[in-house]
Amino acid sequence: MAGASSSPPLTRPSVEAAHEAIKEHIHCTPVVTSQTLNDLASRPQSPTALLGTVFEGQTPASPRIHLFFKCENCQRIGAFKSRGAFHALSRLTKEQLARGVVTHSSGNHAQALALAAQTQGVKAFIVMPTISTPSKIAATKGYGAEIIFSGSTSQEREAMVEDVIERTGALLIPPYDHPNIILGQGTMALELERQVLELIDGDPSLSVRRKDSTHTDGGPTSNGASNTRVGSSLAQRSGRLDAVIAPLGGGGMLAGIATALSGTGTKVFGAEPSFQGADDGRRGLAANQRVTTVKTSTIADGLRTPVGEINWTVISDKSKVHGVFAVTEEQILSAMKLVIERMKVFVEPSAVVGLAVCLYNEEFRKIVEEEGGEEGWDVGVVLSGGNTTLEAISRMFATEDKEAERAEGKIGEKGERIAENVAG
Amino acid sequence: MAGASSSPPLTRPSVEAAHEAIKEHIHCTPVVTSQTLNDLASRPQSPTALLGTVFEGQTPASPRIHLFFKCENCQRIGAFKSRGAFHALSRLTKEQLARGVVTHSSGNHAQALALAAQTQGVKAFIVMPTISTPSKIAATKGYGAEIIFSGSTSQEREAMVEDVIERTGALLIPPYDHPNIILGQGTMALELERQVLELIDGDPSLSVRRKDSTHTDGGPTSNGASNTRVGSSLAQRSGRLDAVIAPLGGGGMLAGIATALSGTGTKVFGAEPSFQGADDGRRGLAANQRVTTVKTSTIADGLRTPVGEINWTVISDKSKVHGVFAVTEEQILSAMKLVIERMKVFVEPSAVVGLAVCLYNEEFRKIVEEEGGEEGWDVGVVLSGGNTTLEAISRMFATEDKEAERAEGKIGEKGERIAENVAG
Repeated sequence: MAGASSSPPLTRPSVEAAHEAIKEHIHCTPVVTSQTLNDLASRPQSPTALLGTVFEGQTPASPRIHLFFKCENCQRIGAFKSRGAFHALSRLTKEQLARGVVTHSSGNHAQALALAAQTQGVKAFIVMPTISTPSKIAATKGYGAEIIFSGSTSQEREAMVEDVIERTGALLIPPYDHPNIILGQGTMALELERQVLELIDGDPSLSVRRKDSTHTDGGPTSNGASNTRVGSSLAQRSGRLDAVIAPLGGGGMLAGIATALSGTGTKVFGAEPSFQGADDGRRGLAANQRVTTVKTSTIADGLRTPVGEINWTVISDKSKVHGVFAVTEEQILSAMKLVIERMKVFVEPSAVVGLAVCLYNEEFRKIVEEEGGEEGWDVGVVLSGGNTTLEAISRMFATEDKEAERAEGKIGEKGERIAENVAG
Repeated sequence: MAGASSSPPLTRPSVEAAHEAIKEHIHCTPVVTSQTLNDLASRPQSPTALLGTVFEGQTPASPRIHLFFKCENCQRIGAFKSRGAFHALSRLTKEQLARGVVTHSSGNHAQALALAAQTQGVKAFIVMPTISTPSKIAATKGYGAEIIFSGSTSQEREAMVEDVIERTGALLIPPYDHPNIILGQGTMALELERQVLELIDGDPSLSVRRKDSTHTDGGPTSNGASNTRVGSSLAQRSGRLDAVIAPLGGGGMLAGIATALSGTGTKVFGAEPSFQGADDGRRGLAANQRVTTVKTSTIADGLRTPVGEINWTVISDKSKVHGVFAVTEEQILSAMKLVIERMKVFVEPSAVVGLAVCLYNEEFRKIVEEEGGEEGWDVGVVLSGGNTTLEAISRMFATEDKEAERAEGKIGEKGERIAENVAG
């Protein structure tokens, strides 16, 4: 990997340094909470929801979950990818920058790299398949990048990238498989930690652990310094998130968060779609071997890639990532509907897999029930991006049409038609 | 109108008192800004956009507009209506409350009244047409209201309300035509004013008038008190919004905002759909007479009602409301797409008519160009609610299907099919 040898180690201090380097260029995205979603997550699933799963016939888990949503859909370019792109560029020398940067992506990484390059006054070459949607091509061009079209196989795209590098000397900035990308994405965890503490300070009822009883040693008559001390000791004791769950595709974000939170006591989990084997991370952990190729058309289109090599070293480290769980296409759509309609926050399908795990993955819910006990868990959930369109939503949620087609036998297995609709 | 005689006068102090009365029950909803939307609003329309209008052939207006969005879609029950409902109840005596409240509505007012009644431990009877969508019935029931079904004509609904009043002694809380409702809705304007000042204080570039030059008399070395004074004199001089624009249906919100901002120097405007005569407010002002009946199936379903009687007394007062402008169904959909896809904020069609006027109504844009001059205008835009579903969105934005149908001649006049889709 280009430049990997000059990258800092994958540690929390490196993530802190990355945050210092990029914070003037990125948004500190909002953290929001929802009583409705807390209630839904803390209600046992119906026994019928468990039919056909290994949990069929068992009493549904009854975890208590309070959710804190990190809204990376409000990040620049509409997704967390800006963090990694700005950080990768911040690590380059002037000489390297002068040669420009290149990547192949038709998604959020393309726009993120184009924006970061434009901000630094650097040339960006983006290799995109000819069949990319016009809106994504236009958005990437809008940030001043030069688009180079290729065929749609990975061989064709990589050959075109090689060609650009040979011709221009541009440096490859990969979408996820690089320490600087991992460290950049991890910066969201530092913000999330601090924002959750502030939120709970302002309204203790947001946490599963109300702080009322601990206020005896520092009432409103104490001076400022004493209050501050109480505040910070509280923070360490009860303001810390019990868990953070993030979508897992190539693994830049999950490895970054796990690096940032390593040793803090907050457990880190990954979430994947299960459709057509998109849960390569989960399967890899089970087999103790990274899955290197995935072919899936899950609606969570940001999560169709296999976990990267460097990312895998973090994600397969049990002291850093505590588990990866998968959800179905229907569960993703259902979580997406809740976030958009109830919270009024517009997200893309890939963004909600973490919430879908909290709501519908019985294995995860049993862990929260057992480990959280009556008190429960405060869980940070990353909403990773919001780059979809109302037309794409139309294809996902035109249920009346779909139900009619299902009745006519045009839809076979569950989910198949959904992916087809989205790809179309 | 029940209880109208005991209502406070329609003045700013009455709105301030209303805010005191309800603020513990409502959310102070966020105010957000968007550079992308500012850029779009400040770019002249293309000459082709003016074809077929009275502005055809003229140079498109070139106003400078900075937008401040008041997100009432994040209000309790998902729309501003909670404000009026909580205020109306706060004005009732214990004896009146004990008899319960009643209204007829299948929309946001039903849920708002149900929530306010539940909060006060009061019985709410909601008369709804039998044909109401199940999700709305369920949501209203969810707040503990008793649903009473009626036929769908206004005569049938009103007869059923009379029946409930006779049977239970419940008090009618109308959706908009009442001073207490008007005063309640007006409270959002007080929050908006304060929030915009705070935002501009934190980042002067948000305003069309940067404050940089005025900082000379109170630098960072001044003491706190002096800084505060400078801050507040600045606020009066350059932090005040030039205009606020809000959707106009029955007129509770617009009359409330106009009441709150009367005499402040901020101009207040209304926005309506033009489809099938839904612009009854605009037409009434032109004819100097309130339009009392409207029959339209505009997608902005919250704005299908004529302006109420009491509301009209405020809205027709030129010192309070400075104009009402209308937009087409296509312009509403286009504004909705921008708010959802670019700002990631989920809104219902009625919510975006104010933004649509800023972007597409050439008459309004010429006013901003002339009155705002090179400096431009800071404009507050109310996003009134977010109660729609992804299925409804699917029907509005299934463009591929619609385009195909249009090619086949199945869609006649522009817009007609859209309304049909949504109603269906």
